[in-house]
Amino acid sequence: MGLPLHPHVMNIGYVGLGKMGSGIVRSLLRTGHRVVVYNRSREKAEALAKDGARIANSPAEAASDSDVVMTMLSDDQAVEQVVLGDKGIASGLRRAAVHISNSTISTALARRLAQEHQQRGQGYLSAPVFGRPEAAEAKKLVVTVAGEESLIERFRPVLDAIGRKTIAAGSEPWQANAVKLCGNFMIASMMETFGETYAVIRKSGMQPQMFLDVMNELFNSPVYANYGGIIANERYEPAAFTLKLGLKDIRLVLAAAEETATPMPFASVLRDNFLSALADNQEDLDWSSVAKIPARNAGLK
Amino acid sequence: MGLPLHPHVMNIGYVGLGKMGSGIVRSLLRTGHRVVVYNRSREKAEALAKDGARIANSPAEAASDSDVVMTMLSDDQAVEQVVLGDKGIASGLRRAAVHISNSTISTALARRLAQEHQQRGQGYLSAPVFGRPEAAEAKKLVVTVAGEESLIERFRPVLDAIGRKTIAAGSEPWQANAVKLCGNFMIASMMETFGETYAVIRKSGMQPQMFLDVMNELFNSPVYANYGGIIANERYEPAAFTLKLGLKDIRLVLAAAEETATPMPFASVLRDNFLSALADNQEDLDWSSVAKIPARNAGLK
Amino acid sequence: MGLPLHPHVMNIGYVGLGKMGSGIVRSLLRTGHRVVVYNRSREKAEALAKDGARIANSPAEAASDSDVVMTMLSDDQAVEQVVLGDKGIASGLRRAAVHISNSTISTALARRLAQEHQQRGQGYLSAPVFGRPEAAEAKKLVVTVAGEESLIERFRPVLDAIGRKTIAAGSEPWQANAVKLCGNFMIASMMETFGETYAVIRKSGMQPQMFLDVMNELFNSPVYANYGGIIANERYEPAAFTLKLGLKDIRLVLAAAEETATPMPFASVLRDNFLSALADNQEDLDWSSVAKIPARNAGLK
Amino acid sequence: MGLPLHPHVMNIGYVGLGKMGSGIVRSLLRTGHRVVVYNRSREKAEALAKDGARIANSPAEAASDSDVVMTMLSDDQAVEQVVLGDKGIASGLRRAAVHISNSTISTALARRLAQEHQQRGQGYLSAPVFGRPEAAEAKKLVVTVAGEESLIERFRPVLDAIGRKTIAAGSEPWQANAVKLCGNFMIASMMETFGETYAVIRKSGMQPQMFLDVMNELFNSPVYANYGGIIANERYEPAAFTLKLGLKDIRLVLAAAEETATPMPFASVLRDNFLSALADNQEDLDWSSVAKIPARNAGLK
Repeated sequence: MGLPLHPHVMNIGYVGLGKMGSGIVRSLLRTGHRVVVYNRSREKAEALAKDGARIANSPAEAASDSDVVMTMLSDDQAVEQVVLGDKGIASGLRRAAVHISNSTISTALARRLAQEHQQRGQGYLSAPVFGRPEAAEAKKLVVTVAGEESLIERFRPVLDAIGRKTIAAGSEPWQANAVKLCGNFMIASMMETFGETYAVIRKSGMQPQMFLDVMNELFNSPVYANYGGIIANERYEPAAFTLKLGLKDIRLVLAAAEETATPMPFASVLRDNFLSALADNQEDLDWSSVAKIPARNAGLK
Repeated sequence: MGLPLHPHVMNIGYVGLGKMGSGIVRSLLRTGHRVVVYNRSREKAEALAKDGARIANSPAEAASDSDVVMTMLSDDQAVEQVVLGDKGIASGLRRAAVHISNSTISTALARRLAQEHQQRGQGYLSAPVFGRPEAAEAKKLVVTVAGEESLIERFRPVLDAIGRKTIAAGSEPWQANAVKLCGNFMIASMMETFGETYAVIRKSGMQPQMFLDVMNELFNSPVYANYGGIIANERYEPAAFTLKLGLKDIRLVLAAAEETATPMPFASVLRDNFLSALADNQEDLDWSSVAKIPARNAGLK
Repeated sequence: MGLPLHPHVMNIGYVGLGKMGSGIVRSLLRTGHRVVVYNRSREKAEALAKDGARIANSPAEAASDSDVVMTMLSDDQAVEQVVLGDKGIASGLRRAAVHISNSTISTALARRLAQEHQQRGQGYLSAPVFGRPEAAEAKKLVVTVAGEESLIERFRPVLDAIGRKTIAAGSEPWQANAVKLCGNFMIASMMETFGETYAVIRKSGMQPQMFLDVMNELFNSPVYANYGGIIANERYEPAAFTLKLGLKDIRLVLAAAEETATPMPFASVLRDNFLSALADNQEDLDWSSVAKIPARNAGLK
Repeated sequence: MGLPLHPHVMNIGYVGLGKMGSGIVRSLLRTGHRVVVYNRSREKAEALAKDGARIANSPAEAASDSDVVMTMLSDDQAVEQVVLGDKGIASGLRRAAVHISNSTISTALARRLAQEHQQRGQGYLSAPVFGRPEAAEAKKLVVTVAGEESLIERFRPVLDAIGRKTIAAGSEPWQANAVKLCGNFMIASMMETFGETYAVIRKSGMQPQMFLDVMNELFNSPVYANYGGIIANERYEPAAFTLKLGLKDIRLVLAAAEETATPMPFASVLRDNFLSALADNQEDLDWSSVAKIPARNAGLK
């Protein structure tokens, strides 16, 4: 009779079931939402079926009965294909339903998606996330969201269901993507600072781990502890996030900054060093392996 | 009878009573050490007399009856003068007694001090500290120490008395100075990353404080929170540490790296931006005001 | 009957009649070639009619009766439109006829043009040029050409007709575009070196013109003399080549280098400085006004 | 009777007889000046005795009977020693006689020399030179001179005797050193631009020599032709000017710029790359071998 039992239960489509996407879907299911999933390779969808997800045969189908369809894909090209391609989300999503993009994409594509959806009477929010697969699974992501305020409010419960904190960045979807890209730049810059200092430390006859101990006292940040440790131990495999994708993000933050005529000299140095790492066949190592470049430039190994 | 026997009570001379030095002296006095102090302008010494310090009339006098004399001065020149100048520490310190330098000085000067003291049969340790005046007062500094191992062990209690953590960097004193300079470079780099991202954020129509909220979730570091806030609010006065001294430290880290033929491209960018800030009359602002340069280069204010 | 009077007279279409294109057309006409021209705004075509050019009503028409159609347009977008758009060159050019692009475009577009023309049985050469409008008119351009060797040989007389030197860069058209972009990077770097040194010279109480006199003795290069003079006198208007187009070229050289994973740290600094100049509303000044950035960063004016 | 009256014949002491110094002395002798020479290793002095030079046994002796004593030494330390050390020039030079320094030294040392000489009633001019040993011998150097105007005028004939052009930079001697250092920075920057572009060219399947041909057409400068050729052929031995000395000059131009709070981002990149080359044991190769760094950073060889 009358009102639904759980006022926030929504019908959610989810497209892109890599480690991040799968973790997010599990968080959504645990919160009680109904989720229909799609992934190019079906096995990943089937793994989630056990947890209660329904499987769709195309992005369009995942979108068709949903209040909201969410996407987590690796780059602009994949998002364009899934949204605007054949049997894509845009063709399946109902008018007034909404697409929320969790992917780290360019601000340019975010603007285009906003426009494409608007032309179809659909809503669009950018809601990229910070955090690793474990955080996705454990509902501990940090979510940045941007777009029309009323839409943000309507879907805030969904975002709260996948992260520990949701921060609204602005009223235009691409703004959240700029925030995400700037955040990744902050992390990559930190990696470079470890790369440069460890080179000095090593060439001065000291241990990187000792320097890391000092930095842990100083910064007292889990991000410093984590990456500082990976770089000190050169533990670049398996990659949590590949150098190739890291380069993509540096390229995108430079592009986002260029749109507003903002120079980013540190990002320029990073771009050069990521390229040098690529030239040295590090594309599939963890992106923190960019720290090998300052070491090599100091004549180390 | 009378005072309890405290195995670690030492006779300590302390030269250089700025905010940092005075805080350290208070920590030493509270731990029960006997401290004789010297400062060029006598008022600062007198302020500590109330807390139990004895006042010396020269660096040499502060050193003469001490097991150890410690120094905290603003730059190489001041340290050279106080140690090797007229009525300097080197002339007053007994054989076998030790000089511990807490200042942020060049690795080159640390090597010279080690040599000068050795020629006089005196010991020398570099023990630069991380932390602000409040931390000095509250015994919460992070202390990096380097030099002969037996000396470090002998004076570890003194170092433990001024900080929350003492980390040994190596057996040559200058190594601790390299660590300190690298640490300051890490902090200055973080400032630049805020400068660049806030410029993008502002030109993209968003609030730096919002971005800082995201970064606080991400890095969860008091250093990020502190400097991120100062830069977001452009609260560069009063300076906790002046831009002029910050430039000095960047210059010194580049010099330390050059001794081992280690390029530091981020430090090079920082040097350029500190110089540009100097050219813009920011020398007495807080060193975090280096973040004004990327803002200005993006056409902001 | 028998052989044509002048073995090299060709039927040439020319699209894009800015200063450079018009100068080239005049050189072609003077050499005896038959030229049919097209320009979006017809006045420029009419100015050439007096010199013997025939006027076409579309790029396709300019191409339709020609052995070769040449293009000189300001950027990738304009070239795409003129070649692949409605009534574009690709639709008008006969099989076996050839398109020679004189524009400074991306290596990526050059590859696409090669492919598009090939699919239509048409030939394609990239033949970007170095030199200013006066040089175009006076047949003094330096021409870099790349593409299939037999095509280069066939059209070498046409290229020799527009420049004082034709240099073959390789067998793939985009290679010539890489050369042109690298050349523009060399020039832009030289501008930056004048910007940096003039700043030191001025702040040291000396005259840029004096320093230029020394550099003219040293380098003895007309390019140094020309740009060194423009920058010394800050004569940035009227622009021979706008800063906006200069930024485009720096962007394109970085993109070309990225395709082969080649870092270009000087180009990265240039990109930052061009962006800073853009943020300071210099887009319509001469591109050499990028030299204002190091001056401003030194606190000058 | 006897020698012709030559109004400009002077008594000249010359200290420092490396390739440059020896070439200059020969130019002076050919012009009719009387020259007394000193060099630490006497053989080089003896080689000049055949050409008419008299040999002195110390810098002081070379200075003692001279109207002017000139010096050409490799670095600040050597100049300090020769001028202010035991039996140094300052102790031998008469009041009102003048020291002209041809060496590439720091602006700081130039200021100190000016002061030291002034205190002794002696004159001082900085007159660093551009050009290689062959140019020194052939009287084809470009001379930059700074100091008191009347002194410059008095000794202009001497400077005209060693170069093809004498340019006055300012009234304070150090200004000429700033000009010389800026000039060397211009040349080093050009090397880096060849390093970066050749890397792109090679990775794009083209020949550096072809690119150099284009640049020679474009810049038409002997300096480009010379260094572009050395770098294209990687002909870094024997060194005309070692990388180690090149690094010294980059360090000095950065120091000169720092004195006036002038950032030089290209010079910062150069410093990083020279250090990287040093870490790779290139110290005795020609300084143009700094171009190996961008090649290596692109994964070449």
